[in-house]
Amino acid sequence: MKTIEELQELIGKKIDGFCRKNGDGSIYQPINYIVQLGGKRMRPVLSLMAANLYSDDIDDAIYPALAMEIFHNFTLMHDDIMDNAPLRRGKPTVHEKWNRDVAILSGDAMMIQSYQLLMKTRPEILSDILKIYNQTALEVCEGQQSDMDFQCRNDVSIDEYMEMIRLKTSVLLGGSMQIGALIGGADEEGQKLIYDFAIKIGLSFQLWDDYLDAFGNDYETGKQIGGDIQADKKTFLMLRSFEKAGAEELAVLNKYLGQFDKGSEKVNAVLSVYRQLQVDNELKELVDQLHAEGLELLEKVPVDHDRKKMLRNFALSLKGRKS
Amino acid sequence: MKTIEELQELIGKKIDGFCRKNGDGSIYQPINYIVQLGGKRMRPVLSLMAANLYSDDIDDAIYPALAMEIFHNFTLMHDDIMDNAPLRRGKPTVHEKWNRDVAILSGDAMMIQSYQLLMKTRPEILSDILKIYNQTALEVCEGQQSDMDFQCRNDVSIDEYMEMIRLKTSVLLGGSMQIGALIGGADEEGQKLIYDFAIKIGLSFQLWDDYLDAFGNDYETGKQIGGDIQADKKTFLMLRSFEKAGAEELAVLNKYLGQFDKGSEKVNAVLSVYRQLQVDNELKELVDQLHAEGLELLEKVPVDHDRKKMLRNFALSLKGRKS
Repeated sequence: MKTIEELQELIGKKIDGFCRKNGDGSIYQPINYIVQLGGKRMRPVLSLMAANLYSDDIDDAIYPALAMEIFHNFTLMHDDIMDNAPLRRGKPTVHEKWNRDVAILSGDAMMIQSYQLLMKTRPEILSDILKIYNQTALEVCEGQQSDMDFQCRNDVSIDEYMEMIRLKTSVLLGGSMQIGALIGGADEEGQKLIYDFAIKIGLSFQLWDDYLDAFGNDYETGKQIGGDIQADKKTFLMLRSFEKAGAEELAVLNKYLGQFDKGSEKVNAVLSVYRQLQVDNELKELVDQLHAEGLELLEKVPVDHDRKKMLRNFALSLKGRKS
Repeated sequence: MKTIEELQELIGKKIDGFCRKNGDGSIYQPINYIVQLGGKRMRPVLSLMAANLYSDDIDDAIYPALAMEIFHNFTLMHDDIMDNAPLRRGKPTVHEKWNRDVAILSGDAMMIQSYQLLMKTRPEILSDILKIYNQTALEVCEGQQSDMDFQCRNDVSIDEYMEMIRLKTSVLLGGSMQIGALIGGADEEGQKLIYDFAIKIGLSFQLWDDYLDAFGNDYETGKQIGGDIQADKKTFLMLRSFEKAGAEELAVLNKYLGQFDKGSEKVNAVLSVYRQLQVDNELKELVDQLHAEGLELLEKVPVDHDRKKMLRNFALSLKGRKS
């Protein structure tokens, strides 16, 4: 079985090959640029790990895993337009380096290319793979739409928030792992357990991101702490605080909502409310619970205990991470 | 065999069903809106006609034909953003009626939905259909990119222009017809003849659009005549005029390039140049030639002469159309 580092190296090489084949036509330059910005390649790594659970030979799973990474980068390219984001992994976003239209069109082309990569698999399972992929891809779009819709709403519930992050983040991890497992030889029960494992771990991961944004250390995260608070982002912490707040806390929250020039004063005031209401502890408990539920599901996957070691360690490494 | 009107009605019904299934979630409203703006449904009609060449039973071809229409509408939604177009078929474009981000995201979702529809076919030909579709879709994006690139270039050759309109317009007709023919039972030779027929007819159609924009009648086309000239669009007429122009004609063309407030003075001046240089006649000859080459290819398709009647008449109806 391959280690995470070996899988990352394998994927890196395949991405280099993908870019070489793309050449430097004007529609392909931004594609090669964004996929070579790096990142942890979490989706293809997880896809290959899922295949590796069932089979030592993961060759058949490599291109579909790559498809998940290309799809993910397509969503980043389009999301960055919508978020007016200037930077991605510390480098100019595609719409900044080129322009909006290039980012739209190269993104479109990437999605088509992801289907081309997905097809490089055994024909007898193509239809099953495509069904998982199409549903996953559509759900990711629905998640992004919900995220945008939430920005104009003041009545978002925690359930709705959890469903939004499930769609926006977790299903792509789930789809990647299910496709890997399917190619590796998992039956439907195994595929479902692995999919559900990825959903739980993904939710836990995303919620921990919310925590770090508020309570992390900016040296470790590399991001400005309190960015979500500054931007009035409707995170778990914010939504839950509004649910639990008494008159006093509500007054503080409402005072700073819509104020974008208060700097650390706003961040500190909102953080105190979070601590007073103990939503930080609630969030940590939820993160732990989802993580534990994920690991339980992994234990139920009907393959040899030893084969799950790598995936178990990976999941554990995500917990308590500081960045 | 079904008439064009019967096919259009069939497609209209399937589109209604598609929209009902979509429901009214915020990502689906703009999708339902654009696909119900109407239009001739040329791509799915041609796809079904191609299937009908080979088989009386075209049921298997309906959803893939619908996929071509959904893909086409996805390109319209994204192209309208890039062109800053306020209207589409006389109604507000999606980015005007909603906003840019909605148009990006609903467009993305449509592309995924087109793959879902494409999959509703016999599994043993799925892989072949997807190969044609992926290549076609990618070429359409490349064509749009070339069109954008050309706007900043002054050295576009007629060959490059023809290649751009082949990618931007013809290949989607070609892909639609090839997929229909494949589902109907065409072998590779038949598929290729039908694809090439569609390419020729598509080029002829697009070039005739250029002609009508300059020399048509605005009552008949429903568009303002001279729109391409006003916008300095690099059409066949413009590019060929620059190739053929002597000093006198060059002076006229250069005088008006970049002048967007000259109204009919500019249009009339440029039209005189077109007539002087006889590029209007050249264009008409090219349209006729491509049309004739297309019909010759159709004659070679190895099915009974009578089965081609509908397609032949359809191709003839496109020729000499006034709108």
